Amino acid sequence: MKLDKIWFGGDYNPDQWDEKTIDEDMRLFKKAHINMVTLPVFSWAKLEPEEGRYNFEWLDRLLDKLAANGIGVNLATPTTAQPAWLSTKYPEVLPVDIQGRRRTHGMRVFFCYNSPKYHERSAAIAGAMAQRYAHHPALKIWHIANEYGTYCYCPICRGKFIEWLQKRYGSLEKLNERWFTSFWGRTLYDWQEIQLPTELNDDYRFNPTIQLDYMRFVTDSTADCFTNEYQAIRKYCPDIPIQTNMSGYIKKLDQFVMAKRMDIIGWDNYPWPTDDKSLVALKHDIMRGLKGGQSYMLAEQSPNQQNWQPYNRLKRPGEVRMLSFQALAHGADTCLFFQMRQSVAGQEKFHGAVISHSGRDDTRVFKETARLGAELEKLSPVLPGMRSKADVGMLFDWNNWWALENSSGPNRDINYLSTVNLYYRAFFEKNIPVDILSEDASLDGYRVIVLPMLYMFKPGLGDRICSFVQNGGTLIATTMCALVDENDHCAFGEYPGPLKDVLGLRIEETDALLQNAENRVSLDGESFPCTLLCDVIHLEGAKCLGCFEQEFYAGSPAVTVNEYGKGRAYYIGTQPDRALLERVVTKLDLAAVKPGSRDLEITRRFDGENEVIFALNHAQEQGFIDLGSTQYTELLTGAPASGTVYIAPNDVGVFCRRKDI
Amino acid sequence: MKLDKIWFGGDYNPDQWDEKTIDEDMRLFKKAHINMVTLPVFSWAKLEPEEGRYNFEWLDRLLDKLAANGIGVNLATPTTAQPAWLSTKYPEVLPVDIQGRRRTHGMRVFFCYNSPKYHERSAAIAGAMAQRYAHHPALKIWHIANEYGTYCYCPICRGKFIEWLQKRYGSLEKLNERWFTSFWGRTLYDWQEIQLPTELNDDYRFNPTIQLDYMRFVTDSTADCFTNEYQAIRKYCPDIPIQTNMSGYIKKLDQFVMAKRMDIIGWDNYPWPTDDKSLVALKHDIMRGLKGGQSYMLAEQSPNQQNWQPYNRLKRPGEVRMLSFQALAHGADTCLFFQMRQSVAGQEKFHGAVISHSGRDDTRVFKETARLGAELEKLSPVLPGMRSKADVGMLFDWNNWWALENSSGPNRDINYLSTVNLYYRAFFEKNIPVDILSEDASLDGYRVIVLPMLYMFKPGLGDRICSFVQNGGTLIATTMCALVDENDHCAFGEYPGPLKDVLGLRIEETDALLQNAENRVSLDGESFPCTLLCDVIHLEGAKCLGCFEQEFYAGSPAVTVNEYGKGRAYYIGTQPDRALLERVVTKLDLAAVKPGSRDLEITRRFDGENEVIFALNHAQEQGFIDLGSTQYTELLTGAPASGTVYIAPNDVGVFCRRKDI
Amino acid sequence: MKLDKIWFGGDYNPDQWDEKTIDEDMRLFKKAHINMVTLPVFSWAKLEPEEGRYNFEWLDRLLDKLAANGIGVNLATPTTAQPAWLSTKYPEVLPVDIQGRRRTHGMRVFFCYNSPKYHERSAAIAGAMAQRYAHHPALKIWHIANEYGTYCYCPICRGKFIEWLQKRYGSLEKLNERWFTSFWGRTLYDWQEIQLPTELNDDYRFNPTIQLDYMRFVTDSTADCFTNEYQAIRKYCPDIPIQTNMSGYIKKLDQFVMAKRMDIIGWDNYPWPTDDKSLVALKHDIMRGLKGGQSYMLAEQSPNQQNWQPYNRLKRPGEVRMLSFQALAHGADTCLFFQMRQSVAGQEKFHGAVISHSGRDDTRVFKETARLGAELEKLSPVLPGMRSKADVGMLFDWNNWWALENSSGPNRDINYLSTVNLYYRAFFEKNIPVDILSEDASLDGYRVIVLPMLYMFKPGLGDRICSFVQNGGTLIATTMCALVDENDHCAFGEYPGPLKDVLGLRIEETDALLQNAENRVSLDGESFPCTLLCDVIHLEGAKCLGCFEQEFYAGSPAVTVNEYGKGRAYYIGTQPDRALLERVVTKLDLAAVKPGSRDLEITRRFDGENEVIFALNHAQEQGFIDLGSTQYTELLTGAPASGTVYIAPNDVGVFCRRKDI
Repeated sequence: MKLDKIWFGGDYNPDQWDEKTIDEDMRLFKKAHINMVTLPVFSWAKLEPEEGRYNFEWLDRLLDKLAANGIGVNLATPTTAQPAWLSTKYPEVLPVDIQGRRRTHGMRVFFCYNSPKYHERSAAIAGAMAQRYAHHPALKIWHIANEYGTYCYCPICRGKFIEWLQKRYGSLEKLNERWFTSFWGRTLYDWQEIQLPTELNDDYRFNPTIQLDYMRFVTDSTADCFTNEYQAIRKYCPDIPIQTNMSGYIKKLDQFVMAKRMDIIGWDNYPWPTDDKSLVALKHDIMRGLKGGQSYMLAEQSPNQQNWQPYNRLKRPGEVRMLSFQALAHGADTCLFFQMRQSVAGQEKFHGAVISHSGRDDTRVFKETARLGAELEKLSPVLPGMRSKADVGMLFDWNNWWALENSSGPNRDINYLSTVNLYYRAFFEKNIPVDILSEDASLDGYRVIVLPMLYMFKPGLGDRICSFVQNGGTLIATTMCALVDENDHCAFGEYPGPLKDVLGLRIEETDALLQNAENRVSLDGESFPCTLLCDVIHLEGAKCLGCFEQEFYAGSPAVTVNEYGKGRAYYIGTQPDRALLERVVTKLDLAAVKPGSRDLEITRRFDGENEVIFALNHAQEQGFIDLGSTQYTELLTGAPASGTVYIAPNDVGVFCRRKDI
Repeated sequence: MKLDKIWFGGDYNPDQWDEKTIDEDMRLFKKAHINMVTLPVFSWAKLEPEEGRYNFEWLDRLLDKLAANGIGVNLATPTTAQPAWLSTKYPEVLPVDIQGRRRTHGMRVFFCYNSPKYHERSAAIAGAMAQRYAHHPALKIWHIANEYGTYCYCPICRGKFIEWLQKRYGSLEKLNERWFTSFWGRTLYDWQEIQLPTELNDDYRFNPTIQLDYMRFVTDSTADCFTNEYQAIRKYCPDIPIQTNMSGYIKKLDQFVMAKRMDIIGWDNYPWPTDDKSLVALKHDIMRGLKGGQSYMLAEQSPNQQNWQPYNRLKRPGEVRMLSFQALAHGADTCLFFQMRQSVAGQEKFHGAVISHSGRDDTRVFKETARLGAELEKLSPVLPGMRSKADVGMLFDWNNWWALENSSGPNRDINYLSTVNLYYRAFFEKNIPVDILSEDASLDGYRVIVLPMLYMFKPGLGDRICSFVQNGGTLIATTMCALVDENDHCAFGEYPGPLKDVLGLRIEETDALLQNAENRVSLDGESFPCTLLCDVIHLEGAKCLGCFEQEFYAGSPAVTVNEYGKGRAYYIGTQPDRALLERVVTKLDLAAVKPGSRDLEITRRFDGENEVIFALNHAQEQGFIDLGSTQYTELLTGAPASGTVYIAPNDVGVFCRRKDI
Repeated sequence: MKLDKIWFGGDYNPDQWDEKTIDEDMRLFKKAHINMVTLPVFSWAKLEPEEGRYNFEWLDRLLDKLAANGIGVNLATPTTAQPAWLSTKYPEVLPVDIQGRRRTHGMRVFFCYNSPKYHERSAAIAGAMAQRYAHHPALKIWHIANEYGTYCYCPICRGKFIEWLQKRYGSLEKLNERWFTSFWGRTLYDWQEIQLPTELNDDYRFNPTIQLDYMRFVTDSTADCFTNEYQAIRKYCPDIPIQTNMSGYIKKLDQFVMAKRMDIIGWDNYPWPTDDKSLVALKHDIMRGLKGGQSYMLAEQSPNQQNWQPYNRLKRPGEVRMLSFQALAHGADTCLFFQMRQSVAGQEKFHGAVISHSGRDDTRVFKETARLGAELEKLSPVLPGMRSKADVGMLFDWNNWWALENSSGPNRDINYLSTVNLYYRAFFEKNIPVDILSEDASLDGYRVIVLPMLYMFKPGLGDRICSFVQNGGTLIATTMCALVDENDHCAFGEYPGPLKDVLGLRIEETDALLQNAENRVSLDGESFPCTLLCDVIHLEGAKCLGCFEQEFYAGSPAVTVNEYGKGRAYYIGTQPDRALLERVVTKLDLAAVKPGSRDLEITRRFDGENEVIFALNHAQEQGFIDLGSTQYTELLTGAPASGTVYIAPNDVGVFCRRKDI
């Protein structure tokens, strides 16, 4: 699927406003080049004041007005917040928390995603909306609910979990084996003996195998909850794409599983002031990876400060523009904000908005938004649907994330996303593109595959990795790689079982460094600090590139390389610092998209016709990109560009050419 | 009301002691000049061993003995700790906590203040005591329960809360509007859909409007619980004043509301070793402000260490004396301790007492107490009932405290009491008296009104502030002022709505500084650090006094002044450091009570006949006060005093004169 | 009782392994000199798949195989982890936590130790095992359950607690007196008014007297739970010793009480990387003290890293050997590991094991284990049953631990075990042996008795201490000593009541220093820092050895000595630093076991025939021990030894001689 243009706008909650304000908003939207709003995310109680009685007139008028003003709608089913009457009438729609407490009505995403009553009522309103609006001219895309991610532990969920396990394992015998219940005497003789992993039994912390399956089950249940509405819409509206927006805090649900149910990916980007730009870039690349490189929606970002962080720094002048171009540079085709008009009360009253409490159109934020809207219109004709291409593939796996961080030992400070970002950043800073791949993705066409702490190796992965290297690929594996199977069993004997041959080594044991402690690695005549873990490695064919300097394993290998078939495999048996990693990446002989100055982020998107180069200058001083002899057009200015082009501090360049020229 | 003398003594728990010990205590009390004891705070179980059967003989003997020894009684209803039999027989008297858990019997203030059974039984014993002791010669004042402040979330409270809301809002339509339920889809169609804001729905954190009303409701309920006993006493005892002691941790209950129900204010002063003396002074001034300047009771302080702080430092020699004189200097007419004799077991066995476990009368603490008692007798003839007068009024509002600190954003480190103290201290250190005013108090007669982070502006306040300045007053407003209405709605459009005109400016947005970060303000050619928040200000008539030095708003106003009518209005658009604030206060041209050396705290109290000047030397070196040419008598020594009078380190002077001379 | 040899081996969980792996394990065990395994700790569900139906064939074969391979068995009742079917069928066997929540099935030690059903089923399987295996040749000792220590708050426990109180106090009148219920109005008129001290009433924190009794009750209940199985075994197996292994985190249960029920002590030693070696030594000496000096079992230690610490450092080469010899040096007769073969899944999959996931017998850990096994065989003929002798006795009391640390005030940072270790270490570093004594142990034969923060003085202890000094002993008492009776009542009047005379002083009050603050003590012309608490002391006969340097009590005594009868009594009225304590210990004129170099730990064990000197060189450089002119044989090498013997870094020497020569 390909969007008709770059969608610009975002969440709009007109149920909070009177008619006059809404009319004023239409004027302001047009002034700011806004062409898309998301609504009515929180209007279930308004639209269905009692069970089965709908009240769509308000929404009719609104959609008509938007259509009349040329503004499209990302039409949301309002099912993220069920009405109070529904929770009151059917308390079983409320979730039970990990302490075993039935919640009372409140908040949002505050329902049991397995509740039959919730399924019934959410499908009913989604279907009613689809029936009514399937052919409305404002309708551009469907948006189901909002930022799924609640975990429920109610009796219904327990029953469903048991069914899910019966389907997954077939027999209790198999379940006992895969849950390794011989440990600590947990053998089950009846399915009904299964309890959820909660604070009541501490299994969520101390029984990693059950917990892993529960997290899978919650993902599957949430995906089914989404699909329940999806199908209700599809009955009346066969063509319009359907999605939901995922929270930027993505650990809770396996987004590769969720992605399969959606027509297009949408995500909410709320970086912290202290986040490195490479972390934002990584998350974008994850989103692009969820559907194999398909472009996606930036579904929410704040046009200014947030309210829910401890210290809600204003976005600096130009900062939102830079974040927006970064999104487009990595594969987004939309730029949507939360939100259009600032709420006057409630939890988010101090969250930034395009239109602030003052209602003025001469604020810094409004003016920056309008400028950005105008700029995006210049990119609209070429950008939507463009893809990217990387030589480097990095495997990313939610099951691995859960299992790795839920593991008891060896080091509490193991953080999967930080480690992935550490490795990602080494490529990012050289403007070497990286694709994020699911663990079952094809490795064809990549020159380098990176497995940052890919601890869990599901069946077949070891063979696929070996073939990849055998056939000439380069592998980078790290400490903690390839230790457990899909049930978190250390089933491979010697470490790292499936990678032993390709890496040409054996790990006897792994030392965990104390908090803030470090060892050092000697490599290429230099000494680099390393932290977290140190593997005690026996070479079995590999060559040592760098050695540990301290502890009883001083002098033993820390970084190795092994020639294997037509390829080679690197192993980094510790958590390297950035400089050490930069040194290793240098050895791979990979090219940047284009040469450029330091702190210039450079990416490329293309389709069958055009190529676009993004150059984002994150530095506070002038930078440059070297476009070489090719002739480009800078899209924001319309000026021709080639050779060395200078980019002002905090500014961007977007260079386009016909691809086949 | 005016006390007959300075009451000196405090809590006494003779139910812990045998007859012989009590007799020894009488000897010790007289030796220490003790003239008042508070009892029997914790004796409900002793006095009512089963429902409706009273056993007052023990208390009869005790009161007779005290009367015979010339010691008055602050007669406590023992209702802070209901008997175990009551909790066992009527479990609904136990509170439900914010997690939804019914408590089991224990502790104190451990009852539901809305429980009809608690109301019935507490009124019954209060009435029985009033009937029996209304005319007892020892009875000087009534003391109801102890340090109210529990929050209950039981079904009875939920029902009462719904009633309270029905009364407050009249209709669900109005409630939906004032709770802004259009946000996050919380519209209510039935009163019974209302849930309490607890951990079960997280509304206590994430629904600031409901939470605000619940805190108001708890205050009203607690006040009714107090009044329930008040009326039971009044039936038999029409004249003796009635009060309760409030905890020094005063945030939980709106003490302006509580104060209306009491005849005299009483509070418990337990400063931490790290508290600045200005914080203690501020709390005293709050207490004096609760009933419009009426003198109040220091109801508890420790004669030595506490037990419940993490590090229970001994009070240094003279420290308790200084704290006691500071209380009198700010408007207290009593000096009461917790407690007379140290408990030998239980939670507070290591809490300091006048009579320690040793029972000796030659301890440091006993001797200091006795000296203080003798000194107070010298002040007794003139001090009780004296008032103060300040040119500076500082508005202080519990609703504001709750709403401001419960707000999500802009900065987690916003602390109302600290901010009030920051501003208060700027006057305190110059010995410029400050009156603490409720937000609905009259502003007449003040030269300066200060609104530290007065975020909530209830109806009419904006107009009253404007009139005050119009008529020649000086206003000091700060960042976060005047943003929301009484329901925590940003209802005023441009910031700070009701103060825009008087301040002559408009605030476009507010930057939150990260933890420990600072900006700087240039003012009068100097540079001062500032923290927490920085407003981006547009001048609309005001003059810029100081500018920010850093960030994208460098050079924009941080401190402004606006001439308005006959007055002027200052605005401080950040959290200033003490030096910057001192500089602003200097501009106000306010006079100290008397000139004196640094770290000398100087206050004045007076009545129709006399004036008393307190000079407290907090320094570890000699200080002085300049009394000018007026002739005073130093009350502790009886010596005449005028001109410059030296005060020894850690010592006090109390200077009296006939007012009309 | 005396073991036949040094038992070497440990936990083995063959229910996790197939037959082939078990056969391989037999080979590996023999290669590593393993002669003892503990099993089947977690096999209840396997052995009793439904209520009353046992399935012992698997265990029969296993025991036969072990016997055939010459390996003994520490035969465990598998009752630490009841089967899921038991929890499902009888939910009352699950514990209720301190929040009042009934747990769901999971984990281990996850049952109510007072549950009649648990008692019935655990005794049944213990009895069935005893009946079947009482005469099995592999059986060497019984092991009941595992690391008791759960606290339950269920209704059954409440009923049992009330019965326990009825037995302890006889009448409610006595209970009210001993619980001092006159404080905070807690008088009880009916036994059924008693509630457990939980989070629901906060009595576990704020009612120290009830909490103390509850902790005693839990110990007694747990001991009864142990005894329940003990008796079931004894019915069929009259002679084989019976024990359980206690966790190294020993605070929860009074191990002196538990010890009385066991035939031999066993404990699990899991030091943290940051633990000083003296803390490990102290815990060993506590274990030796539990049964009056009887040698004990090192029941578990890790052959390499743990998994459950935040940072699971590998044990360094030789570190496990050193820990093992340290155990033997202090009185252990076994060296047992958790565990033999590493689990492949579950919470502990990354816990070290003799046989790692790799299954190899050439790992560092396997080789070190095998070397150690061979060494222990050389000690086996002489060591088992040997005892020690110390001149210094240190009183250690669980009731004191609980009451002291549960006390509200004076200083939150009071830590009993750290304080005991501070004093212990002063002797340890001089190689002066210390016996750990229960508070009711005989003091006869000791030259010095030390009472680190022995806050609680049970009846008679004061007299016994006085007699000890009267008769020529030396006492060291410390701040916080002798303040409360067995119910945590400050019943002694002046401080420190029962020690006032023997110490020749009176303490008026105690200052708590703020966090990280210090005072200083002048002693022997030097200045030493001190922390935590400072007593304000009045000498009444004692001589001042050292004075405080700061605060209002500067110049007053901090360290004193008093001549009393034929002995003398030291008092240290603060928390001294190590140097100050070293200075005091020097004054005691006590001798080391043998002279030696710094960081050499030297201990002595002996029996009627032989004496063994252990010399453990903890230093990273060569050390020495001076054996004097006596002729010894070094057991590991067989070489003769006398005079100065050098010990390599990180190495040990074990010197034996016929005692009567």
